[in-house]
Amino acid sequence: MNIIVAQSGGPTSVINSSLAGVISAGIENDFDKIYLSLHGIEGIINDEIAEVDKEKYINKNIKEKLMARPSSILGSCRFKLPASLDDEIYEKIFETLKAYQISTFVYIGGNDSMDTVMKLNEYMKSHNINDINIIGCPKTIDNDLMGMDHSPGFGSAAKYIASTLRTLRTDVDIYDLKSVTFVEIMGRHAGWLAASALSANYGMDKEVVNLVYLPEDQKSLEQVFEEIKEALKYENNLIVALAEGFRDKDNKLDEESFSNQNDAFGHKIVSGVASRLADLVRNKLEIKSRAVELSIVQRTSNLISKTDANEAYKLGYKAAKLGIDNTNLVPVLKRKYVDGYEVYYESVSPEEIANKEMKIPEDWLFDKKTLEEKITAYILPLIEGSIEQNYENGMPVFVKLNDFIK
Amino acid sequence: MNIIVAQSGGPTSVINSSLAGVISAGIENDFDKIYLSLHGIEGIINDEIAEVDKEKYINKNIKEKLMARPSSILGSCRFKLPASLDDEIYEKIFETLKAYQISTFVYIGGNDSMDTVMKLNEYMKSHNINDINIIGCPKTIDNDLMGMDHSPGFGSAAKYIASTLRTLRTDVDIYDLKSVTFVEIMGRHAGWLAASALSANYGMDKEVVNLVYLPEDQKSLEQVFEEIKEALKYENNLIVALAEGFRDKDNKLDEESFSNQNDAFGHKIVSGVASRLADLVRNKLEIKSRAVELSIVQRTSNLISKTDANEAYKLGYKAAKLGIDNTNLVPVLKRKYVDGYEVYYESVSPEEIANKEMKIPEDWLFDKKTLEEKITAYILPLIEGSIEQNYENGMPVFVKLNDFIK
Repeated sequence: MNIIVAQSGGPTSVINSSLAGVISAGIENDFDKIYLSLHGIEGIINDEIAEVDKEKYINKNIKEKLMARPSSILGSCRFKLPASLDDEIYEKIFETLKAYQISTFVYIGGNDSMDTVMKLNEYMKSHNINDINIIGCPKTIDNDLMGMDHSPGFGSAAKYIASTLRTLRTDVDIYDLKSVTFVEIMGRHAGWLAASALSANYGMDKEVVNLVYLPEDQKSLEQVFEEIKEALKYENNLIVALAEGFRDKDNKLDEESFSNQNDAFGHKIVSGVASRLADLVRNKLEIKSRAVELSIVQRTSNLISKTDANEAYKLGYKAAKLGIDNTNLVPVLKRKYVDGYEVYYESVSPEEIANKEMKIPEDWLFDKKTLEEKITAYILPLIEGSIEQNYENGMPVFVKLNDFIK
Repeated sequence: MNIIVAQSGGPTSVINSSLAGVISAGIENDFDKIYLSLHGIEGIINDEIAEVDKEKYINKNIKEKLMARPSSILGSCRFKLPASLDDEIYEKIFETLKAYQISTFVYIGGNDSMDTVMKLNEYMKSHNINDINIIGCPKTIDNDLMGMDHSPGFGSAAKYIASTLRTLRTDVDIYDLKSVTFVEIMGRHAGWLAASALSANYGMDKEVVNLVYLPEDQKSLEQVFEEIKEALKYENNLIVALAEGFRDKDNKLDEESFSNQNDAFGHKIVSGVASRLADLVRNKLEIKSRAVELSIVQRTSNLISKTDANEAYKLGYKAAKLGIDNTNLVPVLKRKYVDGYEVYYESVSPEEIANKEMKIPEDWLFDKKTLEEKITAYILPLIEGSIEQNYENGMPVFVKLNDFIK
């Protein structure tokens, strides 16, 4: 029998590590053919499917090269399956899976993708399809997947953010004046990534990040300005880590910094909160202020955490194994609270992950000091180590799909 | 006698390599004391001066650590000396230089800083001061310094930009739709850095950067949209490298993307051209479009070109030597046009650099293909190699001033 794998949702720096885990598991567990669906579930719908050349994969060290290559190499989609299982698209999907003699289908994605996995499982149940196992493999930079200690992709994004803030600190300090630099960090509903910026302070004589604002905060613009004024008494050049989803509780910023556009899942596309706040601070506090948007660069940097990549690889491998074991469970990652850092893997039903969001524990949000202590202890192991990169002519070079398909 | 060094203007990733060059030259040429002026010339005016601990500098490998540390470690200023040499500030500066028994003062900076060097030299001439040599040491990410083949700082910024575009390409390609990503790159008047983005295409099967717009271009918005529509016929996901100083020739974008604020040298603070163009493309061409601002991260990244850092070090060293040799000349960097890459150093009077701008040669601007060929050949040697970074707890750690001063 054969295995197929697809990547869905937003990219991460380690989504190809999970892909490598699935392919390696496919080879080591003697699947005849290992197929790759291009652009998520759309590849299966439109029959855009490639086949792994196992010899090339092994002989050309593609596993290691995939682990160094950020962003979904198979392409992705934001396709939401229709609610009605009678829709002809389901029939089309299973026709393709049967035509390719698929017994295991691994779908690497976030909570929206787990919705796809759940629906396909429901369809199989209602149509008595028992010879295909469809397994979700979790990923997201947002760290908001339920049932996991942390999400693959988060550690690398956090590593990029903290590292970039360390270099940014060397820049904002140079002039002998007062300034406020707002650094906009991804996170619409959960402030995991913006909070992770605080780990840049670890072990430093002087704070790298002075203030942080999360979507979870309930603060007025007046409170924000007061906190900035207070912080400026002790430090000339402030760095403020700001989640893109932060809003003042009176919604004064809201109209101008939300766009009118929604993505395919109905999420509002947000941007511009840092630059709005920088303008306000410049005008109201009469102080130099600027915005730095870390933008999509933060989610697919090639500064990849080795810990994160290894965990993503193992999740991919375990997802394939769960298919072989004839389940429809999703592998998840838990942490043992022991001396040092240790993780273990369990498996849960996709319902426990789909369409849910893991929030920062409320008692971490008591004040900045508490949040910094808690998030730093949580994050440091996740950003440990770097995946070596291949540079040619002074620039990074990544593996291509053509390097390992038939 | 003693030597003093200061850093001025915008920071670069290798401005501390030049500092290391000056300090090493100071030690090797037996200066009694090596002083560091904090915040450029302001440190001399306000007597904020530190002294290098030579033993620590040597024993703790501070040279190598400075070469890995982006952004002016001495702090900087954007202070413009008054036009009138009768201003009391000049007297104050030379009082301090005499009090510290300075025979050589090296000022690391860009074309505005060469203006400072020039004025101080004029003052010395008119006041018959013959025992102090004030030497400019050139730097800028903008690559617009006259008299140089290229400017220290440019290579590292170009390396960061091209490398980031390579990773960005892995991100923008993932969805099966059409999109335009505008990447805003520093450069108000000269498009060197935005043009350098084209080197990311070198050796690739498929273009990383599809279009480029520079301050030098004379194009209407209609032409820009036509070029985008044409390019979309051949490529689904465009990356457009956009200099922050690009404006359409009819100035339709101008009002909204220039701010009202000027910096101390009367330069307009510009921003937002990428996000304005992305909005226009989204609305007029009805296509997914977004802006990525590389922001100040591009000028002080710790992805530092080894070639650039070594050249910056040598310029710092040579600047100190020119002071010892009792000149007021500025060391500059030239290229031998031979097989392979070879540079040599000359020295020129600060007048040849101050307040001037080196433009991209006009015949390079004929079309995108020509520009890409010319700029790639010019840039590849400048981005070669990387300075090794020290990571602790998953994040970069940089040398501090306290590590090597008395």
